[in-house]
Amino acid sequence: MNSIMPLLSQSARLPLRFSCRIRHFHIQQKKLAVELTRIRYPNLKRGPYANVCDADISNFEKLLPGHGRVITDVNELDGFNTDWLKTCRGSSQVVLRPKTTEEVSALLCYCNDRRLAVVPQGGNTGLVGGSVPVFDEVIISTQLMNNIISLDEVSGILVCQAGCILANLDSYLKDHKFTMPLDLGAKGSCHIGGNLATNAGGVRLLRYGSLHGTILGLEVVQASGVVVDCLSSLRKDNTGYDLKQLFIGSEGTLGIITKAAILCPQKPNAVNVAFLGCDSFNRVLDVFQKSKHMLGEILSAFEFMDAASMDVIQKNLKMHNPIADFPFYILIETSGSNGNHDEEKLNKFLETMLSTQLVNDGTVATDMSKIEAVWSVRERMAEGLMHDGYCYKYDVSLPLLKFYSLVEDMRRHLGSRVTRVVGYGHVGDGNLHLNITTPAYSHEIMDLIEPYIYDWVARHHGSISAEHGLGFKKKQFIYHSKTKSAVKLMQAIKKLMDPNGILNPYKTIPDAS
Amino acid sequence: MNSIMPLLSQSARLPLRFSCRIRHFHIQQKKLAVELTRIRYPNLKRGPYANVCDADISNFEKLLPGHGRVITDVNELDGFNTDWLKTCRGSSQVVLRPKTTEEVSALLCYCNDRRLAVVPQGGNTGLVGGSVPVFDEVIISTQLMNNIISLDEVSGILVCQAGCILANLDSYLKDHKFTMPLDLGAKGSCHIGGNLATNAGGVRLLRYGSLHGTILGLEVVQASGVVVDCLSSLRKDNTGYDLKQLFIGSEGTLGIITKAAILCPQKPNAVNVAFLGCDSFNRVLDVFQKSKHMLGEILSAFEFMDAASMDVIQKNLKMHNPIADFPFYILIETSGSNGNHDEEKLNKFLETMLSTQLVNDGTVATDMSKIEAVWSVRERMAEGLMHDGYCYKYDVSLPLLKFYSLVEDMRRHLGSRVTRVVGYGHVGDGNLHLNITTPAYSHEIMDLIEPYIYDWVARHHGSISAEHGLGFKKKQFIYHSKTKSAVKLMQAIKKLMDPNGILNPYKTIPDAS
Repeated sequence: MNSIMPLLSQSARLPLRFSCRIRHFHIQQKKLAVELTRIRYPNLKRGPYANVCDADISNFEKLLPGHGRVITDVNELDGFNTDWLKTCRGSSQVVLRPKTTEEVSALLCYCNDRRLAVVPQGGNTGLVGGSVPVFDEVIISTQLMNNIISLDEVSGILVCQAGCILANLDSYLKDHKFTMPLDLGAKGSCHIGGNLATNAGGVRLLRYGSLHGTILGLEVVQASGVVVDCLSSLRKDNTGYDLKQLFIGSEGTLGIITKAAILCPQKPNAVNVAFLGCDSFNRVLDVFQKSKHMLGEILSAFEFMDAASMDVIQKNLKMHNPIADFPFYILIETSGSNGNHDEEKLNKFLETMLSTQLVNDGTVATDMSKIEAVWSVRERMAEGLMHDGYCYKYDVSLPLLKFYSLVEDMRRHLGSRVTRVVGYGHVGDGNLHLNITTPAYSHEIMDLIEPYIYDWVARHHGSISAEHGLGFKKKQFIYHSKTKSAVKLMQAIKKLMDPNGILNPYKTIPDAS
Repeated sequence: MNSIMPLLSQSARLPLRFSCRIRHFHIQQKKLAVELTRIRYPNLKRGPYANVCDADISNFEKLLPGHGRVITDVNELDGFNTDWLKTCRGSSQVVLRPKTTEEVSALLCYCNDRRLAVVPQGGNTGLVGGSVPVFDEVIISTQLMNNIISLDEVSGILVCQAGCILANLDSYLKDHKFTMPLDLGAKGSCHIGGNLATNAGGVRLLRYGSLHGTILGLEVVQASGVVVDCLSSLRKDNTGYDLKQLFIGSEGTLGIITKAAILCPQKPNAVNVAFLGCDSFNRVLDVFQKSKHMLGEILSAFEFMDAASMDVIQKNLKMHNPIADFPFYILIETSGSNGNHDEEKLNKFLETMLSTQLVNDGTVATDMSKIEAVWSVRERMAEGLMHDGYCYKYDVSLPLLKFYSLVEDMRRHLGSRVTRVVGYGHVGDGNLHLNITTPAYSHEIMDLIEPYIYDWVARHHGSISAEHGLGFKKKQFIYHSKTKSAVKLMQAIKKLMDPNGILNPYKTIPDAS
């Protein structure tokens, strides 16, 4: 029977959204260390960089006086060397924790002179191996750069250091009736600097647009140590080239972001979430089209997940499905300035969806704890998948009509060799998260997936990385999404801005040759 | 007496919005030619470029076969050599009108080999002398590159050539229930390529954000003739550096934009415009704050003009003030998916504004012709000012609290030497248009205004060009808004991408020295 009803009690018992993420992170830290990247990828060659020596360590200690700012303890280093997914592990011998832009500048100046390779690290929540060393790069962490500098309460412009945690910024803003223009599952530990360096997308992009539009200014330290101050906190500034754009999404290969000015939208007065069940992916697309027309300016998220994804949530995380079983699920969020108007729009929309049988069942959440509970079904997916063992993670953009065919093709292609193939993601942005799990990493499975998936995406004019970036794991596939002339220009810009190639080597773009 | 009433009949008689703009353009063309830029600015030195010779013209004719594609007729050239404001005039001897990217590539390859300087030109509606030659640069016009290539009706992604006129794109989209994310007074003649090259702002930026967020892809021809294809029509694509961002706002100095992919929002079902009168600028700011809270997601424009601006509209354009006389006027636009909801929000807001006496009088327009009539009061301002003779045009970003003090200071500073000093602009974006008029251009007046205005803006941490760009007229003042290290990096990027400096020389950034 079709029914749209208040959220059932079982979903109210689901844990809240970002606290889980942090807890999980610590659980993972206790597991055994993963294979070193240089061993897993034996064809990799270390670049022509100097090795860190004792004199370097003493110099770092002079540049960063005080306790816990230069970390060399092997046990402490392990968390910084290993990525969140447990798929990459470097062997850096030192982590540096500056507090100020001037300290970042002094460190880079020193490393550049010494030809020491560097990997900038924020919350280390990246999914493509971009935030950990490949060999023994020096890690510069933004952990201690976590000051909020200012908030203009008229314009909503927030200025902060790069190491602020996304969730902390959002909760600070809430007290001042604003909200962050981006939100993602890792919000409890990711740093805003890392979000910017990787041009993070997330669930609010549909509503507030990309960081290229919402970031008003950046302060960045170049490889040479020179500080580029583009920290304008003005909504409009057309004086010369918009340099900050170059750093957004360059994954720490062109400079280290130290401060940002962010245009923050008003905190919505009313938020509603609907969780719906659908019979086919075509119906998911129809519901998306209708939601754009009927919910218009209040639509703030449109996410989908397939039945295999729900299985992960139920079996691996012991969470409940808030509705009956369906082949596809949709999560719709609205947010607006007038609760009554929003509710009226949403009710009318849901009635239409049910009466036209585009949607078969659903539940609506209006109070914050229930909204967070429904969201956690979607946001804890990455975590749930890791319980299977190893997760081969793909994050592609595709034209909507081809969106789910890739999951079906991949399932056929891999058959029973893998634990599961699941598809979920941001329908509103054409962004599919395709995940494949096996009990442990396997070269043979990897060879079956890549370049098969990249060829598939390129054939359908998609992007091989919608929001995760290329990092270490996908850099060699850039030509599947970018032309030779474009990559050549990227290489020339890299050479210009980091002539010694010390910044995050082995990542993002192939070396010029 | 306070009254919010339907638009009075006199405003319904106001001419419609963009037809006027085109008509006026032709009237201006008939006036006498303005002083040559190289004579008005005698200290300028021509760069080390070749001179166009007869052999070049025949080669251009080979590259662009057919009638009217290589223009050398002196009478025809005048319109291309002179800017819309009649403040700059170059002496180019040839205009080239390619139709395809391949032709642009062949032309640039030729010009680069021959060291011929080039100025790219769209609708030639720029306000800082950026779209006309300074000396005898070859003009490459996008007039014949006006094809719409595709529109994805699910996602609203439009792909078109650079020479499409903004208003034409908007009216094409309207038929498909979408709208352009930008709108500005010059829409009847400006080209989308020029909008992108100058990172045009306009009246919808408040709602839909900047072009850095709404442009998904660009195709660009570099100085060497190499085509850089970043024409992704995906909402998300994090594969390598986001090169297209470099070209947005680089004013044709890094490459010529040939195609664009634009994310177009849904056409709103309901649009309302309110035109309000206020006693003081502080009240304008209070009304802005309240409108953000009470109108939230449906607020699509918040513009202001002062009494001196209204005087221009009434005296120079013989248009009527839709309400009584006030020191300040506000134009608020809402657009949304549900007319009843929007009207209810707007009425409640207006009632609050009147009852708290933040607003003294006002009128509301809901049908399209009246909405366009009210908008024309704001949009024909640039045209009205030109009736005074010469217009010194400034377009600055300032913190809102300092926003109007600049107009008052400038009025005191210039006294009776000038015809008028008017202030209007986009309060929602912190963007003030300050305009000063005199019967004819005067070096003495110019010296009184500059660098006084730039020092003032820099002192208050503003931007000396919010949306118009730097072009020819403001390039030397870049250091008032950007640091030396930032400008140095811009110069290095310019040198990398256009080593012979043939693209739009004498503009945007100072030469490296």
